[in-house]
Amino acid sequence: MRTLRTVMSALVVGMFLTGVCGVEAWAQMMTPVGPQWWPSRWGPNDEAGASNWMTPEKVVEAVKLIKTGKVYRLGRVYEAGMPLRGQRTYKLTIPTVPTGGPFGKNKLIFNDELVTSEIGQVGTQFDGLGHIGVLVGSEGDQNAMRFYNGLTAAQITSPYGLKKLGIEKLKPIFTRGVLLDIAGFKGRMLDKGEEITIADVQGAMTKQGLTDLKQGDAVLINTGWGSLWMKDNARFDSGCPGIGLEVAKWLVGKQIAYVGSDTWPVEVNPNPDPDVRGVVHQELIMKNGIFLHENLDFTELIRDRAYEFAYIFVPVPLKGATGSPGSPIAVR
Amino acid sequence: MRTLRTVMSALVVGMFLTGVCGVEAWAQMMTPVGPQWWPSRWGPNDEAGASNWMTPEKVVEAVKLIKTGKVYRLGRVYEAGMPLRGQRTYKLTIPTVPTGGPFGKNKLIFNDELVTSEIGQVGTQFDGLGHIGVLVGSEGDQNAMRFYNGLTAAQITSPYGLKKLGIEKLKPIFTRGVLLDIAGFKGRMLDKGEEITIADVQGAMTKQGLTDLKQGDAVLINTGWGSLWMKDNARFDSGCPGIGLEVAKWLVGKQIAYVGSDTWPVEVNPNPDPDVRGVVHQELIMKNGIFLHENLDFTELIRDRAYEFAYIFVPVPLKGATGSPGSPIAVR
Amino acid sequence: MRTLRTVMSALVVGMFLTGVCGVEAWAQMMTPVGPQWWPSRWGPNDEAGASNWMTPEKVVEAVKLIKTGKVYRLGRVYEAGMPLRGQRTYKLTIPTVPTGGPFGKNKLIFNDELVTSEIGQVGTQFDGLGHIGVLVGSEGDQNAMRFYNGLTAAQITSPYGLKKLGIEKLKPIFTRGVLLDIAGFKGRMLDKGEEITIADVQGAMTKQGLTDLKQGDAVLINTGWGSLWMKDNARFDSGCPGIGLEVAKWLVGKQIAYVGSDTWPVEVNPNPDPDVRGVVHQELIMKNGIFLHENLDFTELIRDRAYEFAYIFVPVPLKGATGSPGSPIAVR
Amino acid sequence: MRTLRTVMSALVVGMFLTGVCGVEAWAQMMTPVGPQWWPSRWGPNDEAGASNWMTPEKVVEAVKLIKTGKVYRLGRVYEAGMPLRGQRTYKLTIPTVPTGGPFGKNKLIFNDELVTSEIGQVGTQFDGLGHIGVLVGSEGDQNAMRFYNGLTAAQITSPYGLKKLGIEKLKPIFTRGVLLDIAGFKGRMLDKGEEITIADVQGAMTKQGLTDLKQGDAVLINTGWGSLWMKDNARFDSGCPGIGLEVAKWLVGKQIAYVGSDTWPVEVNPNPDPDVRGVVHQELIMKNGIFLHENLDFTELIRDRAYEFAYIFVPVPLKGATGSPGSPIAVR
Repeated sequence: MRTLRTVMSALVVGMFLTGVCGVEAWAQMMTPVGPQWWPSRWGPNDEAGASNWMTPEKVVEAVKLIKTGKVYRLGRVYEAGMPLRGQRTYKLTIPTVPTGGPFGKNKLIFNDELVTSEIGQVGTQFDGLGHIGVLVGSEGDQNAMRFYNGLTAAQITSPYGLKKLGIEKLKPIFTRGVLLDIAGFKGRMLDKGEEITIADVQGAMTKQGLTDLKQGDAVLINTGWGSLWMKDNARFDSGCPGIGLEVAKWLVGKQIAYVGSDTWPVEVNPNPDPDVRGVVHQELIMKNGIFLHENLDFTELIRDRAYEFAYIFVPVPLKGATGSPGSPIAVR
Repeated sequence: MRTLRTVMSALVVGMFLTGVCGVEAWAQMMTPVGPQWWPSRWGPNDEAGASNWMTPEKVVEAVKLIKTGKVYRLGRVYEAGMPLRGQRTYKLTIPTVPTGGPFGKNKLIFNDELVTSEIGQVGTQFDGLGHIGVLVGSEGDQNAMRFYNGLTAAQITSPYGLKKLGIEKLKPIFTRGVLLDIAGFKGRMLDKGEEITIADVQGAMTKQGLTDLKQGDAVLINTGWGSLWMKDNARFDSGCPGIGLEVAKWLVGKQIAYVGSDTWPVEVNPNPDPDVRGVVHQELIMKNGIFLHENLDFTELIRDRAYEFAYIFVPVPLKGATGSPGSPIAVR
Repeated sequence: MRTLRTVMSALVVGMFLTGVCGVEAWAQMMTPVGPQWWPSRWGPNDEAGASNWMTPEKVVEAVKLIKTGKVYRLGRVYEAGMPLRGQRTYKLTIPTVPTGGPFGKNKLIFNDELVTSEIGQVGTQFDGLGHIGVLVGSEGDQNAMRFYNGLTAAQITSPYGLKKLGIEKLKPIFTRGVLLDIAGFKGRMLDKGEEITIADVQGAMTKQGLTDLKQGDAVLINTGWGSLWMKDNARFDSGCPGIGLEVAKWLVGKQIAYVGSDTWPVEVNPNPDPDVRGVVHQELIMKNGIFLHENLDFTELIRDRAYEFAYIFVPVPLKGATGSPGSPIAVR
Repeated sequence: MRTLRTVMSALVVGMFLTGVCGVEAWAQMMTPVGPQWWPSRWGPNDEAGASNWMTPEKVVEAVKLIKTGKVYRLGRVYEAGMPLRGQRTYKLTIPTVPTGGPFGKNKLIFNDELVTSEIGQVGTQFDGLGHIGVLVGSEGDQNAMRFYNGLTAAQITSPYGLKKLGIEKLKPIFTRGVLLDIAGFKGRMLDKGEEITIADVQGAMTKQGLTDLKQGDAVLINTGWGSLWMKDNARFDSGCPGIGLEVAKWLVGKQIAYVGSDTWPVEVNPNPDPDVRGVVHQELIMKNGIFLHENLDFTELIRDRAYEFAYIFVPVPLKGATGSPGSPIAVR
């Protein structure tokens, strides 16, 4: 009996892995994050996710929010000593000064900088669609690692950059932005591991006079945790407040395009459910093509009580990158 | 007599280099690029150059140009095989897939990318104020290398990034953009070493129905040379058409903020004057704080005959970098 | 019938991949490179391969070959412009001069260099045991990639270095070295794709007065191809002469420890059998733990007719690296 | 009067900097580290320093010390988490596994590693002749930075590696090695800032039965401080015991070639004279061409009471590098 079960189990795995039965059969199976999430809302070949919502109409809607012309830079400076996750690196040097020259009778000289970094995954970082996936089979099997639109690691990766889902596939983000000042609503910096609820979000919106979230919006969530940046990196990095699956799914329902926060993962960490890690990343990026932007700085927006604005971010089109550096701006 | 002259010359150099007579005395002296160009129009401590012209009023002016909401990405994809000057490098790898995980019962996995590059000086590149200078004394002496606002290499450089004039000091670029389609005006791709004249610029403006250039504008110059990108890199890199000192000084007079082109140096190369190299860089960046953006792609703008638009670029704030990667956008 | 076969095949693969039947069952199966080659001669936990033959006795034997004290450096200089395979990189910069200082009244200054490279796989390169493997199942499945001692990619790899079979596990190479001057024997530089035969090896040995190869020896093979290094990189890189499986297996029979050559892969390329690539790498490194050292320079040895010597190489113990830079020496 | 003095001072500096009076005149002047130290003992064009003492005779002398054939690896493993000075970096990744393949019907796969590091100046590091200098004039002036053989920074440096004094210019080190176990002599690990005296050295030699130091010898100094490596990096890095100028000059007198130790700078730190930093580096490397090897591990040598041996180290010939990674070996 036990032998039969073992054989059958091997058979199923074998069928899955070798694709004997096609993708369809397996499509009905549950993954560690629930049922199959593909094809995407934008079709089986889409690699742009929610950036597809960046239509001319959406741009025009956003532009109408610009009244005074004040521009807010929301990204942090990339520098040695900033918090870095795991073994990530950020190194910038200036080769011998000058790096070039003198040239000509005008004695031109120039300097370069040389950077080595997981440049899309350090500091203020925009997570692309090739960044987050789930393992649905044997550890180490790239055919059993699924990403946005059901693509496998074997399908998207190569040593020298992603073959699919690279950051260069996205459309520039130009949309309506909304800042939800949860810390302002609660009157305090939120705690590590504190999950933001739908009630919190709605309470903040009411307090701030915001009435709705619309398709394609960029939603920015202020937890206050960003005040620890470069002040207390150890605490900053040890966890953070943020949204959990409840709010994530609610935001998916609103068809927003983009969630940013002043924390390193946007989502609550550790998750109140001790068995999961990064589930909001999977829900938003992998399943719905909605982007995360981490380590933003809302200080000036909050000082000006600026809660609604045009929101602009153009990912640096590094071919095959998983994310992008750079600073979004809010304009109003 | 000759000895005296030698001694006097040594004396003068000594005075200069040791600063005995103060900066003032030397200020009257000629440098290889003409008389002293500092303090800057924005004061002796300015490190933001023409990005200071990015005022709320300028933003509002630019926003008025947005009618349809169409967004044009003007930057090229960064990729292996793109043209690189000199010994510059562009390398992107994906560490072992997955780079992290699986984590939790949700079996989260993630990928990173690792980039090594002169990231602000490869591909589509925005030249900052610490990139370009002039040697005004002994080769190798950082005190005799002058940059924007008269700062010396000794004052601005360090092994781990510029101490002054770093790209992070700039304000986001949000302004009126104007495309001068010189190739369209001439009915052909311009040649290597062909200098664009004021007459060319005015002819193109007339043809395109453009009446003026204003303070703080971004001026984009299409030469057609960009059509060689990734098609014939050797030729692309061997030189290019572009503006020379004549147009550069005329643009300075117009107080524009920014010049971009579809070539690697914006300026004509080789210069018709065989004795000089990079003089437009010195005139615009070093002396006037006006930025250059190289290796742009105007294909779509030209297809749509889009000559006037809101122009947006936010340099990636890499502390102490000489330039920035990233893609500007035109919106109209 | 066909269905049954398909199911059975899936079943077998499933058994293999999931390890239901243990390693033993599969052990009898054929891989693309023949039957199972593990456990290694040095046991199932060995990670040092043929460096285990570097015993004190072998050192003493090698030392007896030192008569005059003349030292030959056999490694090439690492430099920009050297031949590199595929997308490999070699980049060295000196951060701003000086990188540090001045410090103290003694005004100490210092310079560093910053290197980015596949440092164990560029220029003169020593291939370690984690470098070469074979795929025995589905592409992309790290459990189906086998290396020395049967270890899988899943078992040995991590994003930040090999967990097993890293170069730091090897013992320093100190042994008897023998140079087989095949080009000298043939009176000419060998051709691209020209496979060296056992007859060639024996002919060269006879001509050079060499009578035997012994357990643990380092065997160096001169093809003359190295004369193209930095002279005609395109041709150098386009292929090369070298040993094939015939000589490789003969050398395995001799229990030698190490094969070096003046070509980039040691083995003939392209292989006379157009269906295979890198089979000598698999035979020597993966199956027998015998090391390859590529891009050596025998010019001085040949000038001195130095065919037998003490041979010394200490891999740079980069934790988890697949290979090592550095220059071996011959001493006699 | 004051004006005259100022002018005269400017004149002298001017003469010096512009070379009016030639190098000879200045040669008589004092530098921050004493009188002119060039031309070197090996002539004004030498770039190999004390590696010139690696003669065949010296090799033969060293070989005679090999009796049992036991090999000791003295270098530490390079790994994430090892002590690093200042902003130096050590990063090793494995690009997507496999980095290459599968190729051919033999389904060859291979892995690479990608390293970014100040590779000659991290972990076990061998300091070359371009690493250490002195400033003898204005800060920032590369003409006023002197190195071995009087070469200036302007003469030796370039952005992409040293033009002179690069590590590739050295001859392989193969010499008599002597271990001075100062910790063993004192019966304890030495303290931070504790300077080893000539009496200590002589006491240790007597205790260990060593009678002399000879021209070209490698002298290894055990302080016990190395026991902190990867155990208490903060303390390890905070300073160390070591030799000062007294012993350094005594060693120069003995014409030894090489000093290694189990600390990060070989020399005592902080120096008992609070006004100086790195003076032993200047005395040995810059003035006398004698090499330093830092962060060695003598544990096994001490366990075996192995005090005299053949000592072998071949710098990795990275063109234009200031130092070298790699592990020396002792053989006896």
